Amino acid sequence: MRNICMLVSYDGTAYSGFQTQPSSVTIQEKMEEAIKLLTGESVKITASGRTDAGVHARGQVINFLTSSQIPIRRWTLAINARLPADIIVNGAAEVDESFHSTRSAIRKTYRYTIRCGRNRDVFQHHTEYHHYAPLDVEKMRQALQYLLGEHDFTSFCSIRSTKQSHVRTLYAATITEWDESIQDIPSKRLVIEITGNGFLYNMVRIIVGTLLQVGEGKRHPDDFKTILLRKERSAAGPTAMAHGLMLWEVMYKEAVKFT
Amino acid sequence: MRNICMLVSYDGTAYSGFQTQPSSVTIQEKMEEAIKLLTGESVKITASGRTDAGVHARGQVINFLTSSQIPIRRWTLAINARLPADIIVNGAAEVDESFHSTRSAIRKTYRYTIRCGRNRDVFQHHTEYHHYAPLDVEKMRQALQYLLGEHDFTSFCSIRSTKQSHVRTLYAATITEWDESIQDIPSKRLVIEITGNGFLYNMVRIIVGTLLQVGEGKRHPDDFKTILLRKERSAAGPTAMAHGLMLWEVMYKEAVKFT
Repeated sequence: MRNICMLVSYDGTAYSGFQTQPSSVTIQEKMEEAIKLLTGESVKITASGRTDAGVHARGQVINFLTSSQIPIRRWTLAINARLPADIIVNGAAEVDESFHSTRSAIRKTYRYTIRCGRNRDVFQHHTEYHHYAPLDVEKMRQALQYLLGEHDFTSFCSIRSTKQSHVRTLYAATITEWDESIQDIPSKRLVIEITGNGFLYNMVRIIVGTLLQVGEGKRHPDDFKTILLRKERSAAGPTAMAHGLMLWEVMYKEAVKFT
Repeated sequence: MRNICMLVSYDGTAYSGFQTQPSSVTIQEKMEEAIKLLTGESVKITASGRTDAGVHARGQVINFLTSSQIPIRRWTLAINARLPADIIVNGAAEVDESFHSTRSAIRKTYRYTIRCGRNRDVFQHHTEYHHYAPLDVEKMRQALQYLLGEHDFTSFCSIRSTKQSHVRTLYAATITEWDESIQDIPSKRLVIEITGNGFLYNMVRIIVGTLLQVGEGKRHPDDFKTILLRKERSAAGPTAMAHGLMLWEVMYKEAVKFT
């Protein structure tokens, strides 16, 4: 059997998340259907991370085993011709049989985008969380610093998590501001980018939901230190809405060479 | 009567253009409906330029006369509550009775966006024209230089134009490249921005359609000089697709102060 790996982008708006579940439309289901149309095989694909309902991906990585002999260069176009317009395969690679898109990942980056200003953006509202009132971005940056390094992220993890350990390491957490004002009407896009060795269930969304409270002045940046130490979900703020979140990039021990 | 001016953004995907026409859904119709819901009045709105079917606007300017006494600060939110999600009023202003959004405009900027690379972008495909093969951007920039200044743009104008004069002045024409590669898979976004004192019917789309031929190596940049001199539509290339075009900004003799 060949082990095929693919670099996938999708707009999660219309889907009940990545993973197949009864009576709902998922990315996994659409991709497995496309592969079956192409190869005749019923494969089971594995993703680097299962994005939730409404969450997007720019650089999701999936893999599956197949006995199909289609040359690797032909996979991308062939699969794209069989996928809906909101899912696209950017590239494919044939990888070692030991490669597993979840377990072999060493580093992941998520982005959460906030539109800050009176008005929604008419072109990007499906990938941005709209926040009407101004946010203190400097204070949000201060709060994020407490999360860098190795910590037990239980406070920033859904109580539905089934993971044994909630210890993860964050390598970077930044906020970039873009001025998107239209004439005199102020508008900002804030992109929160977080890179770590792994993420827990709802972790980025809970971090962002708590960060918004800091930006609104409802919490002090130093609260992030205390929240981590409490190790209970109730210590943190609400879970931010799904549609602002995007799985941006996944890195592996040995870089996958997509074609 | 008060003269109310509004700064409007819309995603043109679902519309048959700006201007009301029988048995089709237009931006004008949706806006006039929203104003009627708010004020009870049947007004007729005028726009700085009537965008075609599928064309978008970030900074469209419209105006209309009303006897409504609603304070100017309240218009934006009140109208937005009555508009579909793909049309948004960014701000409103009360202007002098002599103000006319078309005739008072002195300068307009359009942007045309091209996604250059093997794959469409899954998040922005409704506002980008997808071009599979590489483009020679430097040659496209050279071609654009011939259009700067005052010229008769008959060659770059639809034969359906009803304007008496086809002489217009372009002040700037630039191409900005953004690297949008996903890991090893190359992808570029090209933003062509053109500013002038006025634009003819389909003018930007015909310029871009001809520019694509230069980028593909099918025409020499110097052809743009000859095309202008020929003063006939058939001298230029095809009309580029509507969905890559966006009315970006409109400037007036006296800047309108939107709130």
